Amino acid sequence: MQGTTLGWMQDEVDHFGFDTDKTFKQRYLIADKHWKKDGGSILFYTGNEGDITWFCNNTGFMWDMAEELKAMLVFAEHRYYGESLPFGANSFKDSTHLNFLTSEQALADFAKLIKHLKRTVPGAKNQPVIALGGSYGGMLAAWFRMKYPHMVVGALASSAPIWQFEDLVPCGVFMEIVTADFRKSGPNCSESIRRSWDAIRRLTSTGPGLHWLSEALHLCSPLTNSQDVEHLKDWITETWVNLAMVDYPYESNFLQPLPAWPIKVVCQYLKNPNVSDPQLLQNIFQALNVYYNYSGQVKCLNMSETATRSLGSLGWSYQACTEMVMPFCTNGIDDMFEPHSWNLKEFSDDCFKQWGVRPRPSWITTMYGGKNISSHTNIIFSNGDLDPWSGGGVTENVTDTLVAITIPEGAHHLDLRANNAFDPTSVLLARSLEVRYMKQWIKNFYASLRKKR
Amino acid sequence: MQGTTLGWMQDEVDHFGFDTDKTFKQRYLIADKHWKKDGGSILFYTGNEGDITWFCNNTGFMWDMAEELKAMLVFAEHRYYGESLPFGANSFKDSTHLNFLTSEQALADFAKLIKHLKRTVPGAKNQPVIALGGSYGGMLAAWFRMKYPHMVVGALASSAPIWQFEDLVPCGVFMEIVTADFRKSGPNCSESIRRSWDAIRRLTSTGPGLHWLSEALHLCSPLTNSQDVEHLKDWITETWVNLAMVDYPYESNFLQPLPAWPIKVVCQYLKNPNVSDPQLLQNIFQALNVYYNYSGQVKCLNMSETATRSLGSLGWSYQACTEMVMPFCTNGIDDMFEPHSWNLKEFSDDCFKQWGVRPRPSWITTMYGGKNISSHTNIIFSNGDLDPWSGGGVTENVTDTLVAITIPEGAHHLDLRANNAFDPTSVLLARSLEVRYMKQWIKNFYASLRKKR
Repeated sequence: MQGTTLGWMQDEVDHFGFDTDKTFKQRYLIADKHWKKDGGSILFYTGNEGDITWFCNNTGFMWDMAEELKAMLVFAEHRYYGESLPFGANSFKDSTHLNFLTSEQALADFAKLIKHLKRTVPGAKNQPVIALGGSYGGMLAAWFRMKYPHMVVGALASSAPIWQFEDLVPCGVFMEIVTADFRKSGPNCSESIRRSWDAIRRLTSTGPGLHWLSEALHLCSPLTNSQDVEHLKDWITETWVNLAMVDYPYESNFLQPLPAWPIKVVCQYLKNPNVSDPQLLQNIFQALNVYYNYSGQVKCLNMSETATRSLGSLGWSYQACTEMVMPFCTNGIDDMFEPHSWNLKEFSDDCFKQWGVRPRPSWITTMYGGKNISSHTNIIFSNGDLDPWSGGGVTENVTDTLVAITIPEGAHHLDLRANNAFDPTSVLLARSLEVRYMKQWIKNFYASLRKKR
Repeated sequence: MQGTTLGWMQDEVDHFGFDTDKTFKQRYLIADKHWKKDGGSILFYTGNEGDITWFCNNTGFMWDMAEELKAMLVFAEHRYYGESLPFGANSFKDSTHLNFLTSEQALADFAKLIKHLKRTVPGAKNQPVIALGGSYGGMLAAWFRMKYPHMVVGALASSAPIWQFEDLVPCGVFMEIVTADFRKSGPNCSESIRRSWDAIRRLTSTGPGLHWLSEALHLCSPLTNSQDVEHLKDWITETWVNLAMVDYPYESNFLQPLPAWPIKVVCQYLKNPNVSDPQLLQNIFQALNVYYNYSGQVKCLNMSETATRSLGSLGWSYQACTEMVMPFCTNGIDDMFEPHSWNLKEFSDDCFKQWGVRPRPSWITTMYGGKNISSHTNIIFSNGDLDPWSGGGVTENVTDTLVAITIPEGAHHLDLRANNAFDPTSVLLARSLEVRYMKQWIKNFYASLRKKR
């Protein structure tokens, strides 16, 4: 990233046990162009499940407010992602090597890094630090303020579904929001998708049908059996989910290169649900093509990829199988998907097969408090109404200092993105409110510092 | 303990990693004689480094206020102590088996136990829980409120030296308080002890001197070499330290059976420092005999023991070698001991030799915030001025809700002990203030519960 300095910190592989004293190199990026030692601040991005340079490039808001807050920007990479691999190429080898991939270890890394920077960067010692993050990174920002309030004066947790656990929210809410996005983006759009699943089932019930559908969808690898068909449906489902997440008001490239309001573009192909099965699936192809081939350069659609490779899907799959157990379900009525209930037993067995570990679904709420968080302070929870993750987010004020900001036209952490001419007013308001809170935290920090002296 | 019910909870050996799904049985005691399901509360003792029945028997304050607070009493045993051994007889075998002996794991055990009780004890679900503890247990109570404020509405941290780490307080303060206790308890008392070290050195410089001293001190195993002499001095030093901790105003049996104000009794033998070396050491024997032989039944003094076996000294030695790195030092001027500087390198090497691990001296402050704890709420820090641990404790209010209570005539967590006719007024005041805070927390809990409904 232009304007950043690369840093590495030697950190404990295991903060919570002393049997190993192994260390690893954690990566971080610093940008201090606008930083002022006098009255400045430190904005600390709590990195999530991916390469930190990618988050750095997609968190323009921090760059946009750096000057106003006289802020040093720090982007800390999450262990087991990007180049911060505790065991190098062996990091994902087995459950023993993966044992240190948890949110608690990541938060401890962040705490150590802040201590390290305060000790080593002249002028940083007596400055307020604010945690910022989006999505899982937003959860980490909020949890970091909860667990290490001595390290950060506050946190901006953007699109952070800290309540997408156990039964804190209904398991169906996520897919209902995805569905609503499509319903609102074009006539009959969600209905077309709802009907597509049966059409796929009917079309793929014969060998020639499988062949025809593989061609119609321009799949790189043809469908050969019923397992492939299940995979196809999962892949299409994930595509609609991803579109809901990145339904931004301008051309962007987060998970994929996409046009402005991509669901609207997709829905132009899905206006008529009352067509033949082949016609419906040809329309579905056009819709998928918006997501996978906006550049027009793609020769065939690859079912093994749904988003940028900068995201560490392997690491996240492990985390979802251990701590980050998020129950999802669909019923086909309140949403446009095939009905799937949440089956913990099945999920646990799959996790054991893949990783040799079993999830502990109630641990996160034990650790981080579930809905009982009112004793904490200075956390902004921002959510976009278009974002399916808002269903598990904090969308109403908990207290005067645990505040919710809602962005009706916002998808997944739109507020963290760089200023854009096509930004809806709601996100501009959200950002200005966020800056106002942060300035207040900074002001309070310096006021209490003066009192101590 | 009379009136308690024994409980066992199956708990994860490793809360912070998923490679092992091994569990162990954690012991706890419950007393619910005065508990009311309507408007009651739960007082939760966060067990420290010893057998929980022993803490249960030495925390009479909880029993004394149970009726007034309509409280259920819960005493939770700390892992690796008493009968809560993660690997049974192998728990202390090596650093691999000891890997899960940390404060963080212990706090997680407590959180799981509270969840378990709320789920399984009818009527407990919507009741406020208050954490209480003394000494390391007091640190755990404070830290539990800091890290799991969703679990407890407040904490009473009695004699909890949460600042006895790194350079948060001067390393000499602990021994200065011990010295002051002896200075105040009799004329020339501390001076006699100060002179005893050189007398020991002179006496033990010859073989016959070694023999004479072994006899004079009625040691079970005679001194044979200079290493034994070092051990002797350490043992005597620890005896004075322990006396400072348990300098209670009435006959008691905490670390040892002892008379009221035991240091005063000890000091009756140490009035004259201007005597010959043999006479001084005979006086020292009389003083030691107060601590080790109040019953008059002891045939010889055993240098391998200084306190009750209910304390898990082995486990604490490991904890001191990993997280609980408390720097102590003496200079022989501000205290009555031989000068010893704090030497981390030497300490670390000793730890490595004994346990195969190295301490991480700055971890505790990274984790728990050091002196920067003002964003937390509802913690009472009580300290006795006679208690050497008060030197590392919080003895001034941090905020309106992080309050310090000082007991001028109090030794180590005197306030947690049962009501006694010889209690000084200061501890009665402290206890009544503590109850007042707890009642307020309980009241606030029920008020906010009503608001939610």
